[in-house]
Amino acid sequence: YSKIKAMQKNFLFMLALTLIAFFTACVAIFIDVVAYNMIKYKKVLIFMIENPYLGCFVWVLISVVFICCATSFGYFIAPEIDGSGIPEVKGILSGVELPKYLSMKTLICKIFGLICCSGSLSIGKEGPHVHLAAIVAYRVLKMKIFEPLKEHPGVQTRIMESSVAAGVAAVMAAPLGSVFFSMELTATFYMIHNVYLALYCGVLSAFFLQWYRLLGLTEVINSTDIPEGFNNYDLILFSLIGLASGIIGVLFTSLTKFLVISRSKKRIPWLHRRFRYAIFMTTLYSTICYVFPFMMLNAKQVFNQLFVNGDLGNTWSYFGVAGSLGVFISLKILFTATSTSVQIPGGVFLPILICGAAFGRLIHMISYSFGGIANASMYAAVAGGAFISSTCHSLSVGLIIFEMTGQIHYVVPMLLAVIISYSIGCSLGLNIYDAMIIVK
Amino acid sequence: YSKIKAMQKNFLFMLALTLIAFFTACVAIFIDVVAYNMIKYKKVLIFMIENPYLGCFVWVLISVVFICCATSFGYFIAPEIDGSGIPEVKGILSGVELPKYLSMKTLICKIFGLICCSGSLSIGKEGPHVHLAAIVAYRVLKMKIFEPLKEHPGVQTRIMESSVAAGVAAVMAAPLGSVFFSMELTATFYMIHNVYLALYCGVLSAFFLQWYRLLGLTEVINSTDIPEGFNNYDLILFSLIGLASGIIGVLFTSLTKFLVISRSKKRIPWLHRRFRYAIFMTTLYSTICYVFPFMMLNAKQVFNQLFVNGDLGNTWSYFGVAGSLGVFISLKILFTATSTSVQIPGGVFLPILICGAAFGRLIHMISYSFGGIANASMYAAVAGGAFISSTCHSLSVGLIIFEMTGQIHYVVPMLLAVIISYSIGCSLGLNIYDAMIIVK
Repeated sequence: YSKIKAMQKNFLFMLALTLIAFFTACVAIFIDVVAYNMIKYKKVLIFMIENPYLGCFVWVLISVVFICCATSFGYFIAPEIDGSGIPEVKGILSGVELPKYLSMKTLICKIFGLICCSGSLSIGKEGPHVHLAAIVAYRVLKMKIFEPLKEHPGVQTRIMESSVAAGVAAVMAAPLGSVFFSMELTATFYMIHNVYLALYCGVLSAFFLQWYRLLGLTEVINSTDIPEGFNNYDLILFSLIGLASGIIGVLFTSLTKFLVISRSKKRIPWLHRRFRYAIFMTTLYSTICYVFPFMMLNAKQVFNQLFVNGDLGNTWSYFGVAGSLGVFISLKILFTATSTSVQIPGGVFLPILICGAAFGRLIHMISYSFGGIANASMYAAVAGGAFISSTCHSLSVGLIIFEMTGQIHYVVPMLLAVIISYSIGCSLGLNIYDAMIIVK
Repeated sequence: YSKIKAMQKNFLFMLALTLIAFFTACVAIFIDVVAYNMIKYKKVLIFMIENPYLGCFVWVLISVVFICCATSFGYFIAPEIDGSGIPEVKGILSGVELPKYLSMKTLICKIFGLICCSGSLSIGKEGPHVHLAAIVAYRVLKMKIFEPLKEHPGVQTRIMESSVAAGVAAVMAAPLGSVFFSMELTATFYMIHNVYLALYCGVLSAFFLQWYRLLGLTEVINSTDIPEGFNNYDLILFSLIGLASGIIGVLFTSLTKFLVISRSKKRIPWLHRRFRYAIFMTTLYSTICYVFPFMMLNAKQVFNQLFVNGDLGNTWSYFGVAGSLGVFISLKILFTATSTSVQIPGGVFLPILICGAAFGRLIHMISYSFGGIANASMYAAVAGGAFISSTCHSLSVGLIIFEMTGQIHYVVPMLLAVIISYSIGCSLGLNIYDAMIIVK
């Protein structure tokens, strides 16, 4: 009889994980499709307007309206939706009771807030999806059928830890990397048996995502075709990239921290009110996006262009390729920091990743004169990983990039840069999540 | 002052890890080069002899002499060298005191024993390299300069856990996979900060290996060129592969366990004496290798042939391709089990991996009639991973295969098969390492 009960429990466990993976994937797909179409029609509308000044005005206006919606969700309904949510999930998993962060209201507001924000400010979706996955997991476990699971203390935490992997996998389609990421994020001591659960959750979620991608409803990140081969000169440059990325990552975190503290302490009273600040930053960002063609691309498009093996397109010839890349990096870092300081849902993963990729391509331009033979796309991938690794203190990012691009032959350059950047990031400052916890 | 001391300690930590990675890579390279040349000259000698019967006799004789050497090392000098050593390393890391397993004598005997065995019996090198890396780590920590590190209890264990990653990376050139593997192998609860140390160790060791490979002194595992794309029919077949692999893996473990117990209890008195058994098995295996051309290939060659995108070469037309693959799988599984039961150094990883790859190619032959579109090499990779996953209870094998082959776009099929096979392996039996511990 006890054997039957154990089997029943195992079955419930698996059922819970399956449902979590399924619903998480559904949420991710819903956000993706709606946001994609919204941005598409916004762009269509702008291109129909012939007068550039009027076009700019309409463009900014639409963005501001959307951001106001997202800000209102947070202000009037659920203040828990602000930011990436990763710091709160970390707190919940280590035992802090934050039931409001796991409510249905938060889930729905965060979904629509995220849709409103994408395309209007420079934000990433990875962090919010981790939060959404955690809410989905909590809600699934609240179902009546899963009551027998609650007898064991700790089961809920284990399942919620696994759901983090589902959240990451649902955005990035990187199941292995997502498991590693969830380990780094959620635990100091990790229970190895959980790898199995997290992997199950992550794979299923990536699996649903893959099916949906076959429908062709949205843009996807293309797999790359990076040629193999690098030499010792490249490796030296990759180490230098690691070094520089480490420092830039720390500077980015400090800048973000400074902006968030300034905003929350209302240092500039006429600016730092909730709505005014959001509107001001959106106006600034949207205007700049309208002016520079390479800023108007969304993150996935930039990713696909920077990771492509060969020359960059016309979009990047505005200031010459090097100039455009330089302007892009500075503006993107600045606006990712300001976007994070605005009280809306949003993370930093993909924006920082593409900053890094642009930095890598910039370094690649001088690599020939140092004797390097590696391709520009390899430089982009390595520097992208290094930027994240010092900002988020995450070593799993290498794996996530490998899975996103479908190639893994440049493990050694990637890990070299990532480890150097990680060491610098860890020794000079906090990661962005812990910094946000302290600020709050 | 205490800050200086902390920095000094950090420096020592890193120095220790660097030395461990370096020496582990040196050991791996030494074994690789010597074994490769020995097997090469053995084959050259055989091809010079025109009479096939005389050739067979000389071939078997050489193998037997080498195996006798390896057996003598274990019998007369260091009985600790037998088997893969992974069970013992697991024991040591969980606190069992086995100082003999970490002595210099064991290191040297295991190195030469491993060289003698490769090419004469069906053994893998991964397990022994984990053991060798652990010895290297222990020896490095015994150096006088590292005495300050011993003040902290647990530091030694942490460094030795990281060395496992160096050992795996030095054979497979798969630093990320090796870290994951070391986590699964060494801990129930894993200290996440150790990921950083293990990764450092693994990357450095893979880095040295890559430099050495540039010299072209040995065969390497080629990176693959698996075309992207699979459909739902393929996924069904991949699940079935996972199912079948799970069962075959459990059968393999049971067979090995049975053979080892029979041998250690000397059930057949005239056969089960140490040297007689080794000589008998070597004679049998060598004769069969001489008869079937596809059995004479070494593991790396088989790997490269099975993972290639396209038809198999002439070697595999002996019984027709399907027949040859079938015979290969049965013989290889049988002889890997018998080789494990002989008292010599040797693991099972690569032999079982290539059995799986052959199984995958076999299933691929019928995939067209089921509507599958995936390539034979993808089937080989997936089934290879699934075989290991049920035998060794390791989920990291997927990652290791991705890194070995340089492609990662088939994450979902791979993990699907690996997880199914892992679940079956875990629910039906022990993994091969734990089985060996219990037998001992």
